[in-house]
Amino acid sequence: MDIIAYIAVASIMTAGFTICIGSIGPALGEGKAVAAALTALAQQPDAAATITRTLFVGLAMVESTAIYCFVVSMILVFANPFWNYVIAQTAGQ
Amino acid sequence: MDIIAYIAVASIMTAGFTICIGSIGPALGEGKAVAAALTALAQQPDAAATITRTLFVGLAMVESTAIYCFVVSMILVFANPFWNYVIAQTAGQ
Amino acid sequence: MDIIAYIAVASIMTAGFTICIGSIGPALGEGKAVAAALTALAQQPDAAATITRTLFVGLAMVESTAIYCFVVSMILVFANPFWNYVIAQTAGQ
Amino acid sequence: MDIIAYIAVASIMTAGFTICIGSIGPALGEGKAVAAALTALAQQPDAAATITRTLFVGLAMVESTAIYCFVVSMILVFANPFWNYVIAQTAGQ
Amino acid sequence: MDIIAYIAVASIMTAGFTICIGSIGPALGEGKAVAAALTALAQQPDAAATITRTLFVGLAMVESTAIYCFVVSMILVFANPFWNYVIAQTAGQ
Amino acid sequence: MDIIAYIAVASIMTAGFTICIGSIGPALGEGKAVAAALTALAQQPDAAATITRTLFVGLAMVESTAIYCFVVSMILVFANPFWNYVIAQTAGQ
Amino acid sequence: MDIIAYIAVASIMTAGFTICIGSIGPALGEGKAVAAALTALAQQPDAAATITRTLFVGLAMVESTAIYCFVVSMILVFANPFWNYVIAQTAGQ
Amino acid sequence: MDIIAYIAVASIMTAGFTICIGSIGPALGEGKAVAAALTALAQQPDAAATITRTLFVGLAMVESTAIYCFVVSMILVFANPFWNYVIAQTAGQ
Amino acid sequence: MDIIAYIAVASIMTAGFTICIGSIGPALGEGKAVAAALTALAQQPDAAATITRTLFVGLAMVESTAIYCFVVSMILVFANPFWNYVIAQTAGQ
Amino acid sequence: MDIIAYIAVASIMTAGFTICIGSIGPALGEGKAVAAALTALAQQPDAAATITRTLFVGLAMVESTAIYCFVVSMILVFANPFWNYVIAQTAGQ
Amino acid sequence: MDIIAYIAVASIMTAGFTICIGSIGPALGEGKAVAAALTALAQQPDAAATITRTLFVGLAMVESTAIYCFVVSMILVFANPFWNYVIAQTAGQ
Amino acid sequence: MDIIAYIAVASIMTAGFTICIGSIGPALGEGKAVAAALTALAQQPDAAATITRTLFVGLAMVESTAIYCFVVSMILVFANPFWNYVIAQTAGQ
Amino acid sequence: MDIIAYIAVASIMTAGFTICIGSIGPALGEGKAVAAALTALAQQPDAAATITRTLFVGLAMVESTAIYCFVVSMILVFANPFWNYVIAQTAGQ
Amino acid sequence: MDIIAYIAVASIMTAGFTICIGSIGPALGEGKAVAAALTALAQQPDAAATITRTLFVGLAMVESTAIYCFVVSMILVFANPFWNYVIAQTAGQ
Repeated sequence: MDIIAYIAVASIMTAGFTICIGSIGPALGEGKAVAAALTALAQQPDAAATITRTLFVGLAMVESTAIYCFVVSMILVFANPFWNYVIAQTAGQ
Repeated sequence: MDIIAYIAVASIMTAGFTICIGSIGPALGEGKAVAAALTALAQQPDAAATITRTLFVGLAMVESTAIYCFVVSMILVFANPFWNYVIAQTAGQ
Repeated sequence: MDIIAYIAVASIMTAGFTICIGSIGPALGEGKAVAAALTALAQQPDAAATITRTLFVGLAMVESTAIYCFVVSMILVFANPFWNYVIAQTAGQ
Repeated sequence: MDIIAYIAVASIMTAGFTICIGSIGPALGEGKAVAAALTALAQQPDAAATITRTLFVGLAMVESTAIYCFVVSMILVFANPFWNYVIAQTAGQ
Repeated sequence: MDIIAYIAVASIMTAGFTICIGSIGPALGEGKAVAAALTALAQQPDAAATITRTLFVGLAMVESTAIYCFVVSMILVFANPFWNYVIAQTAGQ
Repeated sequence: MDIIAYIAVASIMTAGFTICIGSIGPALGEGKAVAAALTALAQQPDAAATITRTLFVGLAMVESTAIYCFVVSMILVFANPFWNYVIAQTAGQ
Repeated sequence: MDIIAYIAVASIMTAGFTICIGSIGPALGEGKAVAAALTALAQQPDAAATITRTLFVGLAMVESTAIYCFVVSMILVFANPFWNYVIAQTAGQ
Repeated sequence: MDIIAYIAVASIMTAGFTICIGSIGPALGEGKAVAAALTALAQQPDAAATITRTLFVGLAMVESTAIYCFVVSMILVFANPFWNYVIAQTAGQ
Repeated sequence: MDIIAYIAVASIMTAGFTICIGSIGPALGEGKAVAAALTALAQQPDAAATITRTLFVGLAMVESTAIYCFVVSMILVFANPFWNYVIAQTAGQ
Repeated sequence: MDIIAYIAVASIMTAGFTICIGSIGPALGEGKAVAAALTALAQQPDAAATITRTLFVGLAMVESTAIYCFVVSMILVFANPFWNYVIAQTAGQ
Repeated sequence: MDIIAYIAVASIMTAGFTICIGSIGPALGEGKAVAAALTALAQQPDAAATITRTLFVGLAMVESTAIYCFVVSMILVFANPFWNYVIAQTAGQ
Repeated sequence: MDIIAYIAVASIMTAGFTICIGSIGPALGEGKAVAAALTALAQQPDAAATITRTLFVGLAMVESTAIYCFVVSMILVFANPFWNYVIAQTAGQ
Repeated sequence: MDIIAYIAVASIMTAGFTICIGSIGPALGEGKAVAAALTALAQQPDAAATITRTLFVGLAMVESTAIYCFVVSMILVFANPFWNYVIAQTAGQ
Repeated sequence: MDIIAYIAVASIMTAGFTICIGSIGPALGEGKAVAAALTALAQQPDAAATITRTLFVGLAMVESTAIYCFVVSMILVFANPFWNYVIAQTAGQ
């Protein structure tokens, strides 16, 4: 088995585990934030505008860490510089 | 065993583990958000419209991390660029 | 042992672990949501309609992550593209 | 040791671990839901009908994830397509 | 060591681990449900009939996941189709 | 080392781990149930009969999962069908 | 190293781990039950007889799971059927 | 390395791990019971006799699981039947 | 397989695991902070300006640890000094 | 490497791990008991004598499990029967 | 594979894991501190200046442990004395 | 590599892990006890003498388990009987 | 691969893991202390001077354990006596 | 690779892991103690002298376990008797 197989296997496994492990934290964090927002809404319905706006900003911050993981996962699958290098080397042989 | 087997095994296992591990966080996070929404509804039935709308936006955000995992899992099974490359190489031999 | 055995073993094990690990999160999340719904019903019986409707929507969202796992598990057992490819290759030899 | 042994061992182990790991989440989730139902009954005995009905729907949803695991486990033991294929291949030799 | 030993060892170990791991969730879930029932009885002795009936239905649901594990465990020990196949093959040689 | 040793070692280890891991859940669950019963007794001494009866039914349900593990453990040590088969085969040689 | 060593090592290690892992659950469960009993006694000293009797029945149930582990551990050390078989075989050679 | 070394190493390691792992549960359980006893004493100093007696019975029950572990540990070090057998075999050669 | 494959595989796997493990802490920490901000807003709507400003500063601090991980991950993929060195060495041969 | 090295290494490692793992439970349990004693003292200074006496009895019980571990650890280092046996065998050769 | 590959792989993997594991603690700690600050602000808006100042000092202390990890990670990637030594040795050959 | 290296490596690693793992429990237990003492002091400043004395006795008991670990660690480094034996054997050759 | 590579790899990996694992405890401990300080400030603004001074002393104590880890990490990278020894030996050859 | 490398690698890795794992417990314990001290100060500012003195004594006790780890770590790096022995042996050859 040559170098292509090693890099392909490593890229496939890393791409999958990056996004699945990386989704645990954001999902739990967003769930907590949404739960707090709903509790806050029930407690102070008059502040709905402020609560909703703060919630969305917070969700965007938390989601950003999931986005990082998704970006790295996509880079590893579709724009992997190591894979491109060895493919170019193989093709150039 | 040649390179095809390695990549196939890696894709199969990664596809499965990506979606199963990636479903733990969103499921728990959504469960927490729904539980908070129900508690909030019981406490402030008059704010049902606001609570429900905020809940749906929050659930969509949390579900998005599960969607990322499902997308990566489906890409690995049905549109795997590494598998396509080695299949093309094998067919071209 | 040839490539068929590797892919078959990987598919069997991944199919099983995908659905069993993938059922932990949804089961706990749904249990939490149902528990909150029951507590809410006891606290505010008059809002039963709203609570039940919100519960069902929430359960559907949580169940969706379990469905993803079940779908991937079934795909790996009954519609596995990697298995189909190597079977076709073997049959064509 | 030939391919039959590999697939048989993988099917046996996966069938067992699928149902045993897959029963942890539903059992805990149902226990939580039943506990909440009992607490709700003690708090609001008049809403027993609504609480019981909601509990049964919720338990059915949670049990569904255990059913998925049991189905996959039974498929692996009694209707395993990979086993059927290699048995057919072996018999046909 | 031939194929019989592999399948026997896998069946023995899987049968044991299936029931022991599969008993953790139901035992904890039932313990929680019983504890909630006792607390509910102490709080509302007049609703004893409803509480007890709901408890028994809930315990039956939780116990069902332990039953699944026990059934799979017994199938692996006493009605293992893979073992029967290889025994038949060995006897037929 | 022949097949007898493999099956003996697997049976010994599985028998032990089945009962020791299988005793964790029931012990904790029963401890929780007993603790709740004692708290309930202290809170509502008049309902002692109902509480005690419910406790015993609940303990029997929880203990049943420990009994399953003990039964499987004993079967593996004293009535192991795989061991009996290979002993019969060895004696018949 | 012959079959005697394998079985002896497996019996020694399993005997030890069975009782040590099997003592975690009962010890914690009994500690919880005793703690609840003491709290209950402080809260309702008049119900001391009922509380103590219920505690002892509960402790006996919890201790039973530890007894199962101890019995299996002792069987593996002093009445191991697999060890007896191979010793008899060795002596008979 | 002969069979004596294997059994000696297994006995040494199992003896140590049996008592160290087996002391975690009892120590935590007793700590919890003692803490509850002290809280109960502070709350109801008049019931000191009943509390202390119940505490000692409970501690004895919890300590019994630690005693089981210590007994097995000592048996493995000073009265190991497997070690005695192989020593007798070696001496008799 | 030469040195290029080793470094490529190590870089791919480390890049993925760095960002996915590194996103757990920040996501949970930000979720907690946002939840606290929403609770605080519901409790003291008049202090919305101070709360929001403090929240944003805090989120920036927490996000900084995720940024560190993302930076290291990107360096390993696109500006890896070890990869550049061995590529230069290989090209110079 | 001969049998002496195996037994020496096993004794050294087991002696260390026995006391270090065995100190976790007692230390936490005693910490909990002392904390409860201090809280009880602050709440009921008049019962200081009873509380202190009960605390010391309880600490002695908890410490006993740590003592078991220390005894086994010292036996393995300074009075190891397996080590003594092989040393005597070696000296007698 | 020569010494350069070993050191490069070790440096890459350690640099990544250092910053990703090292970001868990600070992120959680800062999240907790920010959450407490927001709760404190809601409770005592008049002490905003003191609370904010104390928060910033505390965040700086917590962030310092993340900075340590980032510094070590950067040293391993860009100023690794072991890598420089072996590169100098290789160049000097 | 001879027996000296094995015993030296085992002694070094065991000495370190004994004290580091053995310091987790006492540190947490003492932290809990000190925290309870401070809370008690704030609640009942008049009982400072009794609280402080009880705290010191308790800390001494908890610290004793850390001392055991430190003693074993020092014995393994500076008074290791196994090391002394093999050194004497080597010197005597 | 010679001794230089082993020591370099061990030093690199240990330096990284020392500081990243060693930062978890201090970061969480400081986060807890800062959170308590902020809560205390909100509750008793008049005692700000005492609270702040005590907080800084406490943070310094907690930070000291992180400093120990950083010092050991730096010693392993820049002043490693084992590395210096083998470099001197290599240079002197 | 000779004995020097084994002992150097073991000493480096043990020194690092000893201090990093050994800092988790003390850091958390001290954080808890400091948090309790701050809460106590806010509740009872008049007892600041007693609280601060007790806190310092407690911190010193907790810090002592971290000191043990640091001492063992430094002994392993700078005064390792096993390393000194083998260096002396090597120099004397």
